[in-house]
Amino acid sequence: MNGAQALIRTLVGAGVDVCFANPGTSEMHFVAALDDVPEMRGVLTLFEGVATGAADGYARMAGKPAATLLHLGPGLGNGLANLHNARRGRASVVNVVGDHARSHKRLDAPLEADIDALAGAVSGWVRRSLSPADVAADAAEAVAESARRGIATLVLPADVSWEDGAEPAGPPPYWYPPVPTEYRLADVAAVLGRGEPTVLFLGGDVVASDEGLLAAGQVAAGTGARLMAETFPARMVRGAGLPDLPKLPYPPEMAMAALAGTRHLVLAGATSPVHFFGYPGVPGTPVPADCTVHVLSAPGEDGVAALRELAAMAAPAAGGQQALLEPARPELPSGELTPRTVSAVVGALLPERAVVVDEVLTSGVGLAELTSGAPRHDWLSLTGGAIGDGLPMAVGAAVACPDRPVLALQADGSAMYTIQALWTMAREQLDVTVLLYDNGSYAILQHELSRVGAAEDGKRAGELLHLGTPALDFVALATGMGVPATRATTAEELADQLRTALAAPGPHLVQAVLRG
Amino acid sequence: MNGAQALIRTLVGAGVDVCFANPGTSEMHFVAALDDVPEMRGVLTLFEGVATGAADGYARMAGKPAATLLHLGPGLGNGLANLHNARRGRASVVNVVGDHARSHKRLDAPLEADIDALAGAVSGWVRRSLSPADVAADAAEAVAESARRGIATLVLPADVSWEDGAEPAGPPPYWYPPVPTEYRLADVAAVLGRGEPTVLFLGGDVVASDEGLLAAGQVAAGTGARLMAETFPARMVRGAGLPDLPKLPYPPEMAMAALAGTRHLVLAGATSPVHFFGYPGVPGTPVPADCTVHVLSAPGEDGVAALRELAAMAAPAAGGQQALLEPARPELPSGELTPRTVSAVVGALLPERAVVVDEVLTSGVGLAELTSGAPRHDWLSLTGGAIGDGLPMAVGAAVACPDRPVLALQADGSAMYTIQALWTMAREQLDVTVLLYDNGSYAILQHELSRVGAAEDGKRAGELLHLGTPALDFVALATGMGVPATRATTAEELADQLRTALAAPGPHLVQAVLRG
Repeated sequence: MNGAQALIRTLVGAGVDVCFANPGTSEMHFVAALDDVPEMRGVLTLFEGVATGAADGYARMAGKPAATLLHLGPGLGNGLANLHNARRGRASVVNVVGDHARSHKRLDAPLEADIDALAGAVSGWVRRSLSPADVAADAAEAVAESARRGIATLVLPADVSWEDGAEPAGPPPYWYPPVPTEYRLADVAAVLGRGEPTVLFLGGDVVASDEGLLAAGQVAAGTGARLMAETFPARMVRGAGLPDLPKLPYPPEMAMAALAGTRHLVLAGATSPVHFFGYPGVPGTPVPADCTVHVLSAPGEDGVAALRELAAMAAPAAGGQQALLEPARPELPSGELTPRTVSAVVGALLPERAVVVDEVLTSGVGLAELTSGAPRHDWLSLTGGAIGDGLPMAVGAAVACPDRPVLALQADGSAMYTIQALWTMAREQLDVTVLLYDNGSYAILQHELSRVGAAEDGKRAGELLHLGTPALDFVALATGMGVPATRATTAEELADQLRTALAAPGPHLVQAVLRG
Repeated sequence: MNGAQALIRTLVGAGVDVCFANPGTSEMHFVAALDDVPEMRGVLTLFEGVATGAADGYARMAGKPAATLLHLGPGLGNGLANLHNARRGRASVVNVVGDHARSHKRLDAPLEADIDALAGAVSGWVRRSLSPADVAADAAEAVAESARRGIATLVLPADVSWEDGAEPAGPPPYWYPPVPTEYRLADVAAVLGRGEPTVLFLGGDVVASDEGLLAAGQVAAGTGARLMAETFPARMVRGAGLPDLPKLPYPPEMAMAALAGTRHLVLAGATSPVHFFGYPGVPGTPVPADCTVHVLSAPGEDGVAALRELAAMAAPAAGGQQALLEPARPELPSGELTPRTVSAVVGALLPERAVVVDEVLTSGVGLAELTSGAPRHDWLSLTGGAIGDGLPMAVGAAVACPDRPVLALQADGSAMYTIQALWTMAREQLDVTVLLYDNGSYAILQHELSRVGAAEDGKRAGELLHLGTPALDFVALATGMGVPATRATTAEELADQLRTALAAPGPHLVQAVLRG
C-alpha cells in the first residue's frame, strides 16, 4: 500500500478516526486513501482555521485527538491561530501538513514556505516523514506525542504519500500522566493545615471532571480554603450537584480584588495567573505580593489523583462538609434584550448534558451565575485569546458528542473570524445551536481603548472598533451557508427561538440583537 | 509624543498613509493615535487575512506599501497566507504587529506566541522596537527595507507604543533597483543574435508597465525570440496597443508543450519556471533539458531599463516591427453559462482602465484570449498559490486606485477563505464588482485527484471536494455583509447584471451559476 493508506490506517488503529480537512493538490493521495479506510471520517471545512478549531473542540470533548489535513505552509498558517488556542488549552491535535514531493522541494515552487518554522511555533512535536517505509511509525509517534505534548505536526511530502512500500504501524502505548509525589502532597497539606487565607486555584484536568471538582470541594470544605478556577478553562464541568466554582475575573482590577488577602495560592491543574495584557501602572499578575504560590499539580500531571489523595490527607482532619449547588434556573425574563436578559434566557433553557462553547467575551454578563444551577453541562472557553475558535470548536464538539446538544454562545466580531464553520455544521447536520450576540462592535476593544489611558475616544479611532456600518446580517450569512436562522429583538422572542432551535435536530442560529 | 504617534507620523512622512487594521488590546494606543494623524487612513477588516491581502493588492497597484496592524502572534498567523502571496509577488508591505508590554513579555500570558518565528517565515526584514526613542527610526527603516525586501515586519510592544519620549523620523532614502551590467546585456544580446529558438520569459516589473512590454516586444520583433510571461504575474498590463503576451500555462503537460524546442530561455523580471507541484513521473520544470537559461534581469532588478537597452542593442540589427494587439472584443454570448461564455461576457464588458483581480483558477477558460484586445487594463494574479487573496486584493486595489473600476473574478472555493472582505468593500464603499464563479466544487482538486494517479475517484474522496451540499448562496452572503448582489444563470442575465454592477458606484457581487 502507499504511504497515505498506511498513514490513515495507522491513525485509525491508534484511535484517531476523525480528520478535519482542507486538502489541496499535494494532499490528493490522502484524500483518495480515505476511500480505502472507511473507519476514518473526513470532515470538510472551508478554511483551515475551522479545521484546527474543530480539532481543538473535538479533543476537549473526546479526550483524544482528531487529525487535521492542511495544505503546505499557507494552509498551516491559516490554522495557526486556533492551534495556538489548542496549545494553550493543552488539547491534543495531530496535524498532517502536506508538502511538495521530495524532488520538488528544492525548486522553490510558488507554495514553498518554511513549514517547519510555522509548525514549530505551535507544536510540541514536529516530524517530516522521509519515506513511505517510515510514515506509519511517524504517524503512531505523532499520536503518542500528542497525548503528552498537545500539538503534534507531521509534514507529509506528496511522494511519501503516493509511493508504495508502506505498512501500517501498531497503536502507540497509552500515556499515563504523572502523579505528583508524596512530598509535594505533604507540603501542600501542611500549607492547608495552617489556616491562613488560601485559594485552591483549579484548571486543566481538575475542572474537566466531576471527580476533580468534588475532590477539590472536599479539600476546601475540610480546610477552609477557597476554590477558584482559572479564567478560561479548556473544559469545565458545571451545574447542579457540583461545588460552586467561581472563575478568576478577566479585568485586572477585579482579578486583584478576587485574590486580595490571599496568603497561599495552591495550583491544581492551573498555572499561576497573570493578566491577559499589561497595562500602564498595573502589576502583571493578580497574585498579591505577599502570597506564596504552591504547585499541587502542574498542567499535564494527574491533578485529579493528587486532589483525591489530598482530600484523604487534609479533609478528614477538619471535617467540613462541602456545599453543592442546588438545581436552580432563573425565571425567563421579558422585555428588552440586554446581556443579562440573554444570560437569563440561557440559564432558563440550557439543556441537560449540553456542551456550551463560550466566545461571548464582554457580553456574558451574569452568565456564570445564571447557569450555575442548571442541569449538568460542559463549558469550553477561549483558552488562548485568539478569537475565532468558538464556531469551529462547536463543530468539533458536536462531532465528538453526537448525542449531546451543543450551544455556541458567540460574539459578533469573533464570529466573523471563522464564519465559514456554519457551512460545515450544515454539511454534517451537526446539532449545534449558535446564539449570536450582536452588539455591533468590538465592545471589548471600546472598553480597552478607554482603559489603556489612550486619548479620549476620538471619532476616527472609535470608528475602527465599530462593526455597525454596515450592520452584519447573521441571518443572511447563516442561511447563505445552509443553516436555518432567526433574529430576536426581545427576551420573549429569544426564548421562543432558542427553545425551538434547541429542540430541533441539526444546526440553527439565533441572532440576538443587543443595542444601546 | 508617545511611540504610537511617532510611529504613525513617520509612516505618513515616508508615504505610507493607509493601514489595513485588525487591532486588539495591545494595539489600542496605535488606534488612539490615528486621531492625531488624520493623514493616515485606517481601514478596518474583519479578519487579518483580509488586511494582509488588501496590503498585497494595494502595493501592486500603488507601487508603495500599505501598513497592516495585526494583533500579536495569532493575528500575524491569520495574515500569513496572504503575506506569503505578497512575498511571492514581491509586493512591499509594512506589518506592525502589536505585542505585550516589555514587562509582561516574560509572564507567558495566554496570547504569548513566537511572533519572531512567524514573522521570519514570511518577512524579508523583522525588527522588535525596544523603546519609544527607537520606534520612529525602526518604522522608517521598515519602509526602506520593504522597498528592497518586500515584507517588513515591525513588532511593537504595547508599552513602546504608550510611553512618551518619541519623535518622528524623516523619510528613508528612495531605493533605486539595480540595473544589470553591460556584460550581462552583451551576453544576452549575443544569445539573441544566434537565431536559435529563444523565449524571452517575462515577469515582475517588466510586465507591470507599458514601457517594459513594449521594449520586450521590440526585442522579440528584432530578434525572432518569442515572448512569454510567467504563469502568475503580480501585475500585468494588458489590452489593445500592447504586444500579445501569452502566459506559460499552469498544467505541466501544457507548460512543457509551450516551451518544447526552446534552446534559450532569457529571463527578464521572472525566475526560471517550475511546475506548481511535483507529479509522479513528470519532471519538476517545463524547461527542456537541452535549453540554456540566461538571466537578463532578476526579480528586484530594473528589468525595464535592461530591456530598453537590449532593444537598442539587439533590435535594430534585425529590424523587425513588433505587432501590437488591435482593439477587439468578443460578441456578447447567449444561452448557457459556461466558463467560456462567462469569459466572453467579461471580454465584452471589461471597462477601460479596469483592475482585474483573478482568482478563478480552473474556471477561466478562454479568459486571456477573450480579454486580450479589450481596452487597457491591469491584471493581478494569485502569485503564491495560497487561495483567499482575491477579494482582499480587490479591497486593496480599490483603495489604491479610487478612480478605477476593480473587477474581481473569483472562484467559489477560494472566495470562502476570506469572504469577510465583502464587508470592508461595503464599509468603505469601494468600487469593486465581484464576479463570483459558482461551480459548486473545488474543481481544480477534482481534476488533480484524477491526475495524480490517485485511485478512481471514490465516492467518499470525491465528496471531500464538493461544495454543493449545502449550496453556498453568495447573494445571501454578500447582502448579509452590505454588498448588493444578484444571481445569473444565463449569459444574457450575466451580461445585464455585470453591466449594471460595473456602471454603479460602490461594491456589487454577481453570482454566476455554472453547472454541469
